Amino acid sequence: MYIGIDLGGTNIAAGIIDEVGNTIYQESVPTNIDRMPEEIIKDIIRLANQVIENCSMKKEKIKSIGIGIPGLVDPKTGNVIQCINLNWYNVPLGSMVGKALDTPVFIHNDATLACLGEHEVGIMKGHSSGILLTLGTGVGGGIILNEQIYDGSHGVASEIGHMVVGENDYNCSCGKNGCLETFASATALIQFTKKLLLEEEVQTSINEKIKGDLKLLDGRIIFEAAKEGDLVANKAVDRLAKYLSIGIVNLINILDPDIFVLGGGVSKAGTFLLEKVKLEVSKNIFFKSLPSGKIELAQLGNEAGIVGAALFGRNKLVE
Amino acid sequence: MYIGIDLGGTNIAAGIIDEVGNTIYQESVPTNIDRMPEEIIKDIIRLANQVIENCSMKKEKIKSIGIGIPGLVDPKTGNVIQCINLNWYNVPLGSMVGKALDTPVFIHNDATLACLGEHEVGIMKGHSSGILLTLGTGVGGGIILNEQIYDGSHGVASEIGHMVVGENDYNCSCGKNGCLETFASATALIQFTKKLLLEEEVQTSINEKIKGDLKLLDGRIIFEAAKEGDLVANKAVDRLAKYLSIGIVNLINILDPDIFVLGGGVSKAGTFLLEKVKLEVSKNIFFKSLPSGKIELAQLGNEAGIVGAALFGRNKLVE
Repeated sequence: MYIGIDLGGTNIAAGIIDEVGNTIYQESVPTNIDRMPEEIIKDIIRLANQVIENCSMKKEKIKSIGIGIPGLVDPKTGNVIQCINLNWYNVPLGSMVGKALDTPVFIHNDATLACLGEHEVGIMKGHSSGILLTLGTGVGGGIILNEQIYDGSHGVASEIGHMVVGENDYNCSCGKNGCLETFASATALIQFTKKLLLEEEVQTSINEKIKGDLKLLDGRIIFEAAKEGDLVANKAVDRLAKYLSIGIVNLINILDPDIFVLGGGVSKAGTFLLEKVKLEVSKNIFFKSLPSGKIELAQLGNEAGIVGAALFGRNKLVE
Repeated sequence: MYIGIDLGGTNIAAGIIDEVGNTIYQESVPTNIDRMPEEIIKDIIRLANQVIENCSMKKEKIKSIGIGIPGLVDPKTGNVIQCINLNWYNVPLGSMVGKALDTPVFIHNDATLACLGEHEVGIMKGHSSGILLTLGTGVGGGIILNEQIYDGSHGVASEIGHMVVGENDYNCSCGKNGCLETFASATALIQFTKKLLLEEEVQTSINEKIKGDLKLLDGRIIFEAAKEGDLVANKAVDRLAKYLSIGIVNLINILDPDIFVLGGGVSKAGTFLLEKVKLEVSKNIFFKSLPSGKIELAQLGNEAGIVGAALFGRNKLVE
């Protein structure tokens, strides 16, 4: 058995995963990101012990622990190099958790581990190369090439959300203009829809859904309105699909993988979004008459991070 | 000994290359692209025989022939799938040349083979991953990952010139807007400079250099004027450097290779261009405090294609 932990900006989720990637048990606690790293790490350790206990499992049965981090890590040392959301810099997470639990700990980027999860037991299974795009608060990415996690030469590869794909009317948090994240994240969708609501004098069902309170606007409401045919919502969703497709076509032109997988909260819009993206990609692809990577929705949902983290630990043990 | 052939839109160049990549002899003939594929292939065969003869070499000493094509190929079958510049579609180039010369023939994309040349005996040597950007009439790309040519799952990877990096005031020949090629090729540089010359009422030494004849404008003149401090020329070069840097930073964010190599005619501007690109990349890189791939000028010049093609043939023989 293996423990997989997904450290997110909202929750810390931990699960017990078996040898072939089945989730045996899982639970989560709030991250409360305003705390010091040490406090959050204490909660990670407490949660790991808790899932073992609540699952009535002997601690010795846990062979390794994998942890996914929403930031840049050094998988070799187990250190978090930087995690802007959590305000972590050079935190020796792996050794701290490993020492406390007396179990081998392996860490990596969360989107990369979610990609590994989809590759091991999800929709990417059987494909030797694939790219996961996690469309959430930001846009994350994971890359599998030749059946392996692809890290790059300096460990900074697969930051797909910061690929520039156009020009936008506001800059990305990274300082650049035109990052995919500023077009294709839930945040970007909400921001653009707000702009349309404030600027355009058209009838839209969104106003009723949010009862006039822009603070209530979220991705789910926008997609719901778009599916019902609302013009403003569709304008916003179409823009997201357009730029997401530019990003995917860029990745085809560079890496040409077997498969693209859309994950994260935005992907819950399902085939409604998927079909729009596929159509845009087919229009913009360079070699129109030739086959290219298929585009699918993620299969594991929120569990991908936990499963991927656990299986990363499993794979590392045998390396 | 190996023959390397670089089939270009202007010339067909062929060379005899030794086991370790030294060029023993080379010559070229005009391509005359308006002819049928069969006519051009006859010239390729004639040129190959000619370099052997003019080099006073026994034909039996040639172990293989490699050919670089400015288009999409199937390296497995030796067929050219499509080559828009030459108007070639499904041409069995490999088998036609192989039959005529009774020697194993291996073909691949020209930028990919130039990248292989730089990797085997040029500036990319010793690096396990690298990306070559050929900045010429268009923008081509070659990718080496894990010491190997990277083709992708469907053979359409490394079309780096068609990565969208912004919004442009004209569409790319591929139909999309914002392709790197429309910002960072010699063609794009000339087109943008012409626009500045026609639109802006400023003093510029370019007008004297071209004696008022816009048809004489080329990349060399623009870089010469820019190096002399001409404002219009620098505006055009800075724009090229800006978008080329966006492309490079995108590639760092996706692939994070050891090294980037700038080749093609535009790269003859040398360190003047290189320093501008490095500065822009350093400003826009995501992880500013961390190391990333170095950026260098190509070392082999026009010969990269021939050398790479020959060494591709050499490598294929032992596979």
